[in-house]
Amino acid sequence: MRAMTIPEPGGPEALVWAEVPDPEPGPGEVVVDVRASAVNRADLLQRQGFYPPPPGAPAYPGLECSGVVGAVGAGVTGWEVGQEVCALLAGGGYAQRVAVPAGQLLPVPAGVDLVDAAALPEVACTVWSNVVRLARLGRGETLLVHGGGSGIGTFAIQFGAALGATVVVTARAAKHERLRELGAAHTVDYREQDFVEEVRRVTDGRGADVILDIMGASYLARNVAALADGGRLVVIGMQGGRKAELDLSALLAKRASVAATALRSRPLDDKAEIVRGVREQVWPLVESGVVRPVVDRRLPMTDAAQAHRLVESSDHLGKVLLTLG
Amino acid sequence: MRAMTIPEPGGPEALVWAEVPDPEPGPGEVVVDVRASAVNRADLLQRQGFYPPPPGAPAYPGLECSGVVGAVGAGVTGWEVGQEVCALLAGGGYAQRVAVPAGQLLPVPAGVDLVDAAALPEVACTVWSNVVRLARLGRGETLLVHGGGSGIGTFAIQFGAALGATVVVTARAAKHERLRELGAAHTVDYREQDFVEEVRRVTDGRGADVILDIMGASYLARNVAALADGGRLVVIGMQGGRKAELDLSALLAKRASVAATALRSRPLDDKAEIVRGVREQVWPLVESGVVRPVVDRRLPMTDAAQAHRLVESSDHLGKVLLTLG
Repeated sequence: MRAMTIPEPGGPEALVWAEVPDPEPGPGEVVVDVRASAVNRADLLQRQGFYPPPPGAPAYPGLECSGVVGAVGAGVTGWEVGQEVCALLAGGGYAQRVAVPAGQLLPVPAGVDLVDAAALPEVACTVWSNVVRLARLGRGETLLVHGGGSGIGTFAIQFGAALGATVVVTARAAKHERLRELGAAHTVDYREQDFVEEVRRVTDGRGADVILDIMGASYLARNVAALADGGRLVVIGMQGGRKAELDLSALLAKRASVAATALRSRPLDDKAEIVRGVREQVWPLVESGVVRPVVDRRLPMTDAAQAHRLVESSDHLGKVLLTLG
Repeated sequence: MRAMTIPEPGGPEALVWAEVPDPEPGPGEVVVDVRASAVNRADLLQRQGFYPPPPGAPAYPGLECSGVVGAVGAGVTGWEVGQEVCALLAGGGYAQRVAVPAGQLLPVPAGVDLVDAAALPEVACTVWSNVVRLARLGRGETLLVHGGGSGIGTFAIQFGAALGATVVVTARAAKHERLRELGAAHTVDYREQDFVEEVRRVTDGRGADVILDIMGASYLARNVAALADGGRLVVIGMQGGRKAELDLSALLAKRASVAATALRSRPLDDKAEIVRGVREQVWPLVESGVVRPVVDRRLPMTDAAQAHRLVESSDHLGKVLLTLG
């Protein structure tokens, strides 16, 4: 088969579509014939050499895909050759075929196109595991989402609103109208406005109960300042750096918490538990049309370099898909 | 009545036993005739002028007491004059009488002396709300408790062991034997040993699932280093300072969290919920003798200055009680 290799880490041109050995389904695994994958920021880091695949994962980038089951390994039940699926991957989505633990497969939700289904696994698993399982966002609470125009952001807006939360997002002004259409109650232009002030203003001074953050260090102090009493800050990206001063007395005064998580490094049984939770609690919302994949555009897999440039620019809104066949 | 007043903040000698107005039970409140109170570190801070009582709380120190119901306010059900009780207070335990919201009263557990019952409310509510309700310590997990010889520490050891966790504590070497008797599986002499190394050693490199910390800034980086994957650090004291650098990438690599909490500033309904949880999940363990109040000594209330000196020295083990009558 062919897959997107990275002979030397570097810029988008480092991605090379090359002939590689076919994957075989190990025990408990399924091989998916890939119809589409999607670009995640982690792929950009991997391409630059900063985010090696975890042990045992395919060497190629791609943390999610949709496609058709092509082979089923020993001990797998509930999945059959020919079935349309999408999957959460530890890597390898940028390829014609990928082997994946069966616990990370999901059916394509009714009403969702097979290609668009590639836009769902990573955002659904990330948002559900952090916003519901970890931070326990409740009806009537306020959710602040940084980077509201990203794949994660556009999903978190719809899902948070569906849970009955008030969703506030930061994003470039040009994206605000579309994000309000998706369900954001308030949009903050982070280039012109102070999100701490804005969150306080729209919550009558209370602050955000849950914050889903992609900036890390550069936002830490302001995120803590924007939290409500009992608030939960969840850091899932560190685009603004890794280390920052934490004022524990500010956290203590609010009885608040800071968590940081990632999906890729989790043990298999934990990923399977998350995928189960997504299938039970998120898929019905997708099938009823309350939460939809938001796709900025589809590009052929061979244009992955262009797709990486687009995601690097943050000019997109929602997911950028890479299609095959 | 008489109460421990603080005419001028300062050292232990700032405490003055003086005539003050009697408290009246407001709606939903009960007045307790105090038999004993207990010294908490927060009382030392309040005496020094650093920890003023929250709005509406009695002006005198004392975050817990035991005694007899002396008067019942409008709308209170389930409590009667003459009943023996103990109570979580927002202040005012160092007094002959104290008014307390009925939701913060607990019966004296069967088999516990009325004076010793004053040793329980603050530690039981602090440990249960943090270790169970917030950090969800599970059977088979490892709990690291800093300051194992304190009131909180001696309670957390017994309670953590009763929950089926492996409890590791830091404490002065002189206290280790007694702490192991209480249920600590491993004791670390923080003056001579590196607790990060010790925790790793006794958990086969896994680290602690939950850490109950009283040091704050000075321990932050080492506490994060001592956490297991998915670990939860809960900071309930800042004896080592308030501000420290947090390495979010270290937190993210473990999918870990840092929370900081306090009991005194919580809204009344939250305190009542905690007291209900303690009554349901902790009191049966006390009544069956699995968890016992650990009392270093009883001193007369009029010797509160001496009691403060003792707690300041950290030479005690367990709680220091102040008795009346």
